[in-house]
Amino acid sequence: MIYDFSSRYVSKTATKSVSEFEYDAPSMKTAVPGPNDIQLCLSPGLQNVGAVHFFCNYEESRGNYLVDVDGNRMLDVYTQISSIPIGYNHPALMKVMTNPNNVSTFVNRPALGILPPENFPDKLIESLLSIAPSGMRRVQTMACGSCSNENAFKTMFIWYRNKERGYANPSEQEVDTCMINQSPGCPDLSILSFMGAFHGRTLGCLATTHSKAIHKLDIPSFDWPIAPFPKLQYPLEEFVRENAQEEARCLEEVEDLIVKWRQKGKPVAGIVIEPIQAEGGDNHASPDFFSKLRNIARKHGCAFHVDEVQTGGGTTGKFWGHEHWGLDDPADVVSFSKKLLTGGYYHRDELKPDKPYRIFNTWMGDPSKNLFLSEVLNVIRRENLLEVVTRSGKALLQGLYTLQTQYPHILSRARGQGTFCAIDACNDATRDSIMIKARNKGLFMGSCGEKTIRFRPALVFKEYHVHQLLNILNDVLAEHK
Amino acid sequence: MIYDFSSRYVSKTATKSVSEFEYDAPSMKTAVPGPNDIQLCLSPGLQNVGAVHFFCNYEESRGNYLVDVDGNRMLDVYTQISSIPIGYNHPALMKVMTNPNNVSTFVNRPALGILPPENFPDKLIESLLSIAPSGMRRVQTMACGSCSNENAFKTMFIWYRNKERGYANPSEQEVDTCMINQSPGCPDLSILSFMGAFHGRTLGCLATTHSKAIHKLDIPSFDWPIAPFPKLQYPLEEFVRENAQEEARCLEEVEDLIVKWRQKGKPVAGIVIEPIQAEGGDNHASPDFFSKLRNIARKHGCAFHVDEVQTGGGTTGKFWGHEHWGLDDPADVVSFSKKLLTGGYYHRDELKPDKPYRIFNTWMGDPSKNLFLSEVLNVIRRENLLEVVTRSGKALLQGLYTLQTQYPHILSRARGQGTFCAIDACNDATRDSIMIKARNKGLFMGSCGEKTIRFRPALVFKEYHVHQLLNILNDVLAEHK
Repeated sequence: MIYDFSSRYVSKTATKSVSEFEYDAPSMKTAVPGPNDIQLCLSPGLQNVGAVHFFCNYEESRGNYLVDVDGNRMLDVYTQISSIPIGYNHPALMKVMTNPNNVSTFVNRPALGILPPENFPDKLIESLLSIAPSGMRRVQTMACGSCSNENAFKTMFIWYRNKERGYANPSEQEVDTCMINQSPGCPDLSILSFMGAFHGRTLGCLATTHSKAIHKLDIPSFDWPIAPFPKLQYPLEEFVRENAQEEARCLEEVEDLIVKWRQKGKPVAGIVIEPIQAEGGDNHASPDFFSKLRNIARKHGCAFHVDEVQTGGGTTGKFWGHEHWGLDDPADVVSFSKKLLTGGYYHRDELKPDKPYRIFNTWMGDPSKNLFLSEVLNVIRRENLLEVVTRSGKALLQGLYTLQTQYPHILSRARGQGTFCAIDACNDATRDSIMIKARNKGLFMGSCGEKTIRFRPALVFKEYHVHQLLNILNDVLAEHK
Repeated sequence: MIYDFSSRYVSKTATKSVSEFEYDAPSMKTAVPGPNDIQLCLSPGLQNVGAVHFFCNYEESRGNYLVDVDGNRMLDVYTQISSIPIGYNHPALMKVMTNPNNVSTFVNRPALGILPPENFPDKLIESLLSIAPSGMRRVQTMACGSCSNENAFKTMFIWYRNKERGYANPSEQEVDTCMINQSPGCPDLSILSFMGAFHGRTLGCLATTHSKAIHKLDIPSFDWPIAPFPKLQYPLEEFVRENAQEEARCLEEVEDLIVKWRQKGKPVAGIVIEPIQAEGGDNHASPDFFSKLRNIARKHGCAFHVDEVQTGGGTTGKFWGHEHWGLDDPADVVSFSKKLLTGGYYHRDELKPDKPYRIFNTWMGDPSKNLFLSEVLNVIRRENLLEVVTRSGKALLQGLYTLQTQYPHILSRARGQGTFCAIDACNDATRDSIMIKARNKGLFMGSCGEKTIRFRPALVFKEYHVHQLLNILNDVLAEHK
């Protein structure tokens, strides 16, 4: 289906099946930020005001619609940086709160590693273990995405050193030197990452993050290898050969770096990569690229860590972004957070630390988040949301193709998987201007990379929401001088 | 008052003012772990089984009493690694859950940095800002203790580099090199920490943690300076001169290290220290030590970061452990988590990052935890819990003194502030044996350091709970061969 933006999609909007709990459409009363918002920004209680987009009325928000403090109701396709799985105030989640059996889980946050609640193993089975990636039956929960990746890295370092020392006990020298940050106890191991990657902003994660200078400036880091991520040319079907060459070049560089860092005395214990580089500008690579990268990791004895913090949870049309690669054995470690509501990571049996307390902290997650996650998974299954995402994603991408054909001087490189879509503007100023104008018409989008608009709707984003989005975007572009 | 352990404290136990919602006393049905517990440890859903002490029935737990899955009810003086502020299932916290106005805060977790809820500034004022340490009116929430310290470190690095470059914009070279982990963009700055310290286990934090090898082995680290923490001799009043010398020695070493690391090209941007080294074995130093350390930090232009993750929240008898130092200007950064239910850190105005997004992540805390914290603070004020802690702490420490006098071959070095108390056993095997025997009699304690028992009761730990504790401990010691 090719969209025709000369007429609006009135008929399609009319045939929507309105969810009981949701609004029909955006509704704007003021520009954003509005007067109440501007007032709140002056509050003495507000910290870090510079990053605030606007203040929200979460009580009044529903489904795909985010309401601000001036009563503006926006179609939200950014969803709290891609972290709201099934929309605002979903009735299934409200029910979790009103079930008296759940109160204790919220009120008494345990130290999960040492004193788990009675139902914790069962809750893990019905939630996180029920969606475990291929080949994995071990999961470690953590409080957020950064902690998940930090501990995933530690798990790979421990595994790597255990291999190196033949699973023998550490030497006295190792035990002594680790206490003072020195090798061999704190070995010079490294994690290989990619330019454009984002894996979090704590110091370990940040050493693998290379998307924006503002994340990294002034923070000490590790001398770890950084490979180029393929820069694909669009449309993909016109640049098959060029893109294959580009991917081959990057893979060759990966192998060179692994060898070089081994020679430097800083062997690569693990490779970390996102299925789609999200913060870095929605950069895609082919399944063939990931498959070959996985083989390189195996060949050189490095663990292969797929960071699904942004791609996980169904937004690509499969539960995990890496399922699109079609591999039986796609990863050794898979980390998650955001739409999963709890952070954590899965890992293969071989990567289980040899002793308790090697991976540990006070909370190690939060069982109240697992409660919500169980309900989210029920809703995903009951409402076939992966199919919804696939369908809406196709409509969205098709619409973006049409828009970039209609506005080739403004838009290019429409791309996506499921509703995890993006399109580039001609420059950052144009991108920012389009986003502000769209927001004032009731469409709230996110940005990433240098000049990219990213679409990160909830899983309950239906086709009629797609049409609302495309109509507003088309209006903005038509007015754009 | 000197305790006499030849008779049990029946009379005192009888005069207790039983809280409406609490149990009277421990009640044991089986050894711990009991049969239900052992069964649960076999569950296929359980991960990381090695560290599990036992499974808990949090629904049935009340106040100071933790109930396990075999119906054993223990007096809990470890409180989920010191993270339960006002006991289990406190009615005030249950009420937060049943208030319909709060549902949306639990169900819709925002990306706080960009889309805060309308009431967020007010909630901050009534919770975290109402307990801000002296001289601080800025707070940044985070999801856990490690993330709090990681971001506190980053805040100090950013501040330090801004000072160094005279608050000018970063050079092009800095912007370019930071993307590839290289200096000058990622500068060789360091954080000075102390032997025996614990500041968390993500890679940045871990470089300042030096309490146990199992935390650090096999994990790459930074070459950052580590100063000795004073090893005080007890009883303090008998070793006044020796202890003063020891503290002077450590401070001298701090200054030497700052100079040495500056010469190495890795200047110390910040000094991080706990008011009492908690994981490391409940190591204390005098207010004079901390006051001089604070002056050294100022003299050398280093930020001074007090890590109150374990000492904060009232457990020492003051809300912050560092208030015992009596300084007007005790710190530049104060981090917290655990009993505060949310992580985060306060900092002075000068340390505010110069741009938004320099300190940022998806969630940046969790407003639902702030809701609980507000209620906890109300309870602390209403029930005068800081006074309760001071009173119970005196009774506890006095009791521990008496026990170590009675069992000098087993116990030594009783110490504490408020109920944040500890005592050493003659060796780790004895310590562990005492803890297991006490647990089977209904007293659940924690350990730290090499051979230390640590007491970390909730703030609702009253004097009659102290007597229960001391009675059980006395019974165990009396039976100890």
